[in-house]
Amino acid sequence: MDKIKVGIIGSTGYAGQELARLLSGHKHAEVIRYGSRSYDGTAFSEVYGNMYEIADDTCASDDLEELSKEADVIFTATPQGYLAGVLNETILNNCKVIDLSADFRLKDVAVYEKWYKIEHKSPEFIKEAVYGLCEINRDKVKGARLIANPGCFTTCSILSLYPLVKEGMIDTDSIIVDAKSGTSGAGRGAKVANLFCEVNENIKAYGVATHRHTPEIEEQLGYAVSENGGPLTINFTPHLVPMNRGILATCYAKLSAAFDYDTVRKAYEKHYSEEKFIRLLKKGFNPETRWVEGSNYMDINFVIDERTGRIIVMGAIDNMVKGAAGQAVQNMNIMFDLPEDEGLKITPMFP
Amino acid sequence: MDKIKVGIIGSTGYAGQELARLLSGHKHAEVIRYGSRSYDGTAFSEVYGNMYEIADDTCASDDLEELSKEADVIFTATPQGYLAGVLNETILNNCKVIDLSADFRLKDVAVYEKWYKIEHKSPEFIKEAVYGLCEINRDKVKGARLIANPGCFTTCSILSLYPLVKEGMIDTDSIIVDAKSGTSGAGRGAKVANLFCEVNENIKAYGVATHRHTPEIEEQLGYAVSENGGPLTINFTPHLVPMNRGILATCYAKLSAAFDYDTVRKAYEKHYSEEKFIRLLKKGFNPETRWVEGSNYMDINFVIDERTGRIIVMGAIDNMVKGAAGQAVQNMNIMFDLPEDEGLKITPMFP
Amino acid sequence: MDKIKVGIIGSTGYAGQELARLLSGHKHAEVIRYGSRSYDGTAFSEVYGNMYEIADDTCASDDLEELSKEADVIFTATPQGYLAGVLNETILNNCKVIDLSADFRLKDVAVYEKWYKIEHKSPEFIKEAVYGLCEINRDKVKGARLIANPGCFTTCSILSLYPLVKEGMIDTDSIIVDAKSGTSGAGRGAKVANLFCEVNENIKAYGVATHRHTPEIEEQLGYAVSENGGPLTINFTPHLVPMNRGILATCYAKLSAAFDYDTVRKAYEKHYSEEKFIRLLKKGFNPETRWVEGSNYMDINFVIDERTGRIIVMGAIDNMVKGAAGQAVQNMNIMFDLPEDEGLKITPMFP
Amino acid sequence: MDKIKVGIIGSTGYAGQELARLLSGHKHAEVIRYGSRSYDGTAFSEVYGNMYEIADDTCASDDLEELSKEADVIFTATPQGYLAGVLNETILNNCKVIDLSADFRLKDVAVYEKWYKIEHKSPEFIKEAVYGLCEINRDKVKGARLIANPGCFTTCSILSLYPLVKEGMIDTDSIIVDAKSGTSGAGRGAKVANLFCEVNENIKAYGVATHRHTPEIEEQLGYAVSENGGPLTINFTPHLVPMNRGILATCYAKLSAAFDYDTVRKAYEKHYSEEKFIRLLKKGFNPETRWVEGSNYMDINFVIDERTGRIIVMGAIDNMVKGAAGQAVQNMNIMFDLPEDEGLKITPMFP
Repeated sequence: MDKIKVGIIGSTGYAGQELARLLSGHKHAEVIRYGSRSYDGTAFSEVYGNMYEIADDTCASDDLEELSKEADVIFTATPQGYLAGVLNETILNNCKVIDLSADFRLKDVAVYEKWYKIEHKSPEFIKEAVYGLCEINRDKVKGARLIANPGCFTTCSILSLYPLVKEGMIDTDSIIVDAKSGTSGAGRGAKVANLFCEVNENIKAYGVATHRHTPEIEEQLGYAVSENGGPLTINFTPHLVPMNRGILATCYAKLSAAFDYDTVRKAYEKHYSEEKFIRLLKKGFNPETRWVEGSNYMDINFVIDERTGRIIVMGAIDNMVKGAAGQAVQNMNIMFDLPEDEGLKITPMFP
Repeated sequence: MDKIKVGIIGSTGYAGQELARLLSGHKHAEVIRYGSRSYDGTAFSEVYGNMYEIADDTCASDDLEELSKEADVIFTATPQGYLAGVLNETILNNCKVIDLSADFRLKDVAVYEKWYKIEHKSPEFIKEAVYGLCEINRDKVKGARLIANPGCFTTCSILSLYPLVKEGMIDTDSIIVDAKSGTSGAGRGAKVANLFCEVNENIKAYGVATHRHTPEIEEQLGYAVSENGGPLTINFTPHLVPMNRGILATCYAKLSAAFDYDTVRKAYEKHYSEEKFIRLLKKGFNPETRWVEGSNYMDINFVIDERTGRIIVMGAIDNMVKGAAGQAVQNMNIMFDLPEDEGLKITPMFP
Repeated sequence: MDKIKVGIIGSTGYAGQELARLLSGHKHAEVIRYGSRSYDGTAFSEVYGNMYEIADDTCASDDLEELSKEADVIFTATPQGYLAGVLNETILNNCKVIDLSADFRLKDVAVYEKWYKIEHKSPEFIKEAVYGLCEINRDKVKGARLIANPGCFTTCSILSLYPLVKEGMIDTDSIIVDAKSGTSGAGRGAKVANLFCEVNENIKAYGVATHRHTPEIEEQLGYAVSENGGPLTINFTPHLVPMNRGILATCYAKLSAAFDYDTVRKAYEKHYSEEKFIRLLKKGFNPETRWVEGSNYMDINFVIDERTGRIIVMGAIDNMVKGAAGQAVQNMNIMFDLPEDEGLKITPMFP
Repeated sequence: MDKIKVGIIGSTGYAGQELARLLSGHKHAEVIRYGSRSYDGTAFSEVYGNMYEIADDTCASDDLEELSKEADVIFTATPQGYLAGVLNETILNNCKVIDLSADFRLKDVAVYEKWYKIEHKSPEFIKEAVYGLCEINRDKVKGARLIANPGCFTTCSILSLYPLVKEGMIDTDSIIVDAKSGTSGAGRGAKVANLFCEVNENIKAYGVATHRHTPEIEEQLGYAVSENGGPLTINFTPHLVPMNRGILATCYAKLSAAFDYDTVRKAYEKHYSEEKFIRLLKKGFNPETRWVEGSNYMDINFVIDERTGRIIVMGAIDNMVKGAAGQAVQNMNIMFDLPEDEGLKITPMFP
């Protein structure tokens, strides 16, 4: 079998580099282009020393349309607005596109423009774009030309809560997601706020009541309430944690009835027991980000507080893998009819 | 003026050591005993190298009653149950006692025994013990013989929410406190769970729906609802963060009416504008643990989410200072009629 | 081809767990026993949550001789003295043994007993034990029954300096190795010194002039000076760094003549250019531990200081992989005539 | 007594901020200007939240000469070349200047220009500038108008080795300094190399054989060899450690004779026993950066390796305090005839 030819636009950001790492272990794919505007002309392995003698190719500042003639699939790990600005019908006819930015995640352009504060340049492709949350939308992913790869917080929040919402076990106006993320989620841009000394020995909330993943969670989780979405409104608060990788979402909601652990557990098993990448932990074990580090796993468990009638669901992922590059590869595998875990059979690394 | 003679029982735990650090800069107090069972006979500065040439005294395993004859005040930074097991009338007649454990924090013995799972050995002193949350109970602290110094999570949670509860601005059954703590809160015991490699590069929730600071927050915050307490029930979830110091409490509650920022701000100012150690941040600035590190400050701010009708209050303290030793010294200052910030005029250290 | 049956004694220490991680991705090996005295009866994945749904086997406290009847190879990741205390001819006839402890690394029993301060219980096996530094002793490893897997500091120090010593390019009495290690090297024992708050935000030297890897480095590097070893004496100083993984060795030595970069480079290439796991970095790039994290690579480079006539060689490994479990698997691959990198084709993970 | 009026140029870098922290606790000094080009017009406490309600002054982009009319002393915590570019006789007649940059540290302009690769704009002031290493040059500091405040690595390296060199106990061509620094030493500039994810979980050497503190150490330590300096040449290798603060220098040298611990100890005591900020640790205790954190202390100890005839001296400082702002304040105290430890009686903070 010929290898899938992969192009990466934005390969020198953290998500792009993680794609390179994962694809270096993928049997049926090869990277033919390490796209990078900032490092055009530099060897990829000079930018990321871990890739030395593994990916010594020279980075190139590529035109997406040109690249689409050679590639079978292109991952765009680019700033918001880039893909929407250059996408066209030719590209989508030439190859598959998996977009790690937010450009095609929200179905309502107005919502996109309100939360991202930029104009959407190619709304005509929004409708066909498939929201690539594999465990929920697997069937739609199969035939898609354009995948909107979910955000990291979004993946973690939605998968944590999905069975509860789908099965009507919680009040959909009572959801609070308090999320904690490692710093790689902030990207590799040179900003004072992300310097070692600013992040280390600190924890802070940010984007309180205004974070852009909020409408994405609401929209997608809303489809679990009703076909056309909602009603479902949440509070979402991300926090920055002094660690490289990992997202932990601590989710609170009012149970719609006095369900016990086993009943709720069954709802989770109904939806996830066949999923290779979702691990429902044993009762009494809480998800921790360290146990999924480097892997595509998502760990989930929950506690019911009878005193308050609330359920506390905890979900943990590696933001770089299941929250970005890993899920993107998972989508690629589904689209190309490969085993869903090809290139992703990675045992989490500890410590 | 003679210096206050201070004894510390449990001086070689983290909270005890922090007391030693703070008291080394206190003009009107001197430590006459570094109590320690584990390091009996060892120089204090061999246990904590930072204290070399500052506190080279030899640690001693002291009898509380004996020590009470020499000391003006004794801090007990000891495991749960210790003080309740040895306290008696003689001791309290000899000197003041400021207890950093939980032994005298809860007024209801049954609640104590249920959450702490140990028998309370001297319930007769519970009633007179004053809950030493200085900003709320300053007047009672003044004349007290026995202070129950508040827990770290408790201090942070209560002070974050107090004005809202006191002024009736939130629904008291809607409160969720999602707290994040540095690792010094776990103490200096040699446990696998607290090893560097277990804590580093990880975040986890623990004690979900069962953490012992829950009833303490509920009781104290309940007094702001009504004189006899409550009704007020909360969800409280602590998380362990890979950093040494600091607690951030992210608190969620339903506003009881559509208050705007300025109205709520006024409630906070009413209660805290005269407080030296509480800093209400400028609008738009969120509390971060790094800005209070090493100091007795508590930073507070909030955001109102009109979409959900909830307020998100954030409070940050240094768990070792305002959450333990600093507040204990603040209590001592009040009890001995000293300026409340003596020994505590410490500018937070960054980075 | 039948899978190699692997037993791990001491599987619940960090090195044992790393063996489990690496072997979970090995095509021709399967772990048949997760040996552990401390966690006898507990599922391996309850001890290490990363292994959940990957290695859920129950840990057992195994007798080495019993296990040798079922296993093709046994890894002992055990405290010093354990293997020497139980090894016998029957075991070595039944299966291969790869020892990650120091029991069979030093050829001179007296040196072992002096530096380790314990009696050696089975000196009769010292002679046949092969020092499993694959790149140097590959041929001897092939036919061995018993492998003494090198120490982490030792691997890094020897491979950094070997070409220089072998080619006579440095004065062998001028060598200083200043090494820096992540904290996983200290193991999973519950010790105050290794608590998060003790290690974080700190750097210290330890075992100054007395660390046990010193004679190991001297002996092995000595064989590069002369057949019978030496003369070669070094200063070796390890430091503890607040990070999980990685060793960086900064080595200083007087050049025996005024060699330039290219000449020295050729010596390194002569010995290492065919080595899959040794990466000689491009001129101007210094090894950093992050670039080898999670992998079996060793990165090497050097700088010549003409002002002082010294060469500064830097070598970086992941102490858990090339410094322990990875090299052990590499030895297994050599012994069982498998591709040397089977199970070890791991791209380093960053960040 | 009137307070000393202090101006800080470059107050919003890490060293400038540390000056602000230390001066906030100084009885006889007040900051009258928080100079900052980048944050002109912004409240200092908006740049550094720790200073909220402590230093809320607005930052201003100041002309040094204008400021010199109002200030008694000006600290310049500015990039290399700034002070040399603007200094003049008028300024030095108006007020004292304590320069935290390297502009006036090296007596030989050619050496400065070679290592710093910039032209020196006011070499006429080099001769009068006093190298402000208080413990060595106290007398000269007293009457100085212009202080060249030493570099962080330099302070730590020189003070670690000074007694040995001064007393002729080591071979001056055998010195190797392997230094490890926290990341605050890299400053607050927004550089990819200093992002959290780049520094965390990593250790690397940098500036190998080319670091600018090398000639500074050689020159100053050279004066301990002979009046006109040297001969003394060293190898100096700095490393970046994933922690905020602290420098550990591990220094190696050949003893000039077979001195024992006590003999060498006496040499250290001869020079340092009266020094408030130098702590010679008890035999067997190694300096660790955590024990000096936040303070102006320098901890020193050493080990003699009889096998190799070398001494290993370890010195630890907080790079922000004794390595920068603390020593600058110490110099100010000496110049203004204040107790040398005014504003610096800070107990190190742990953990």
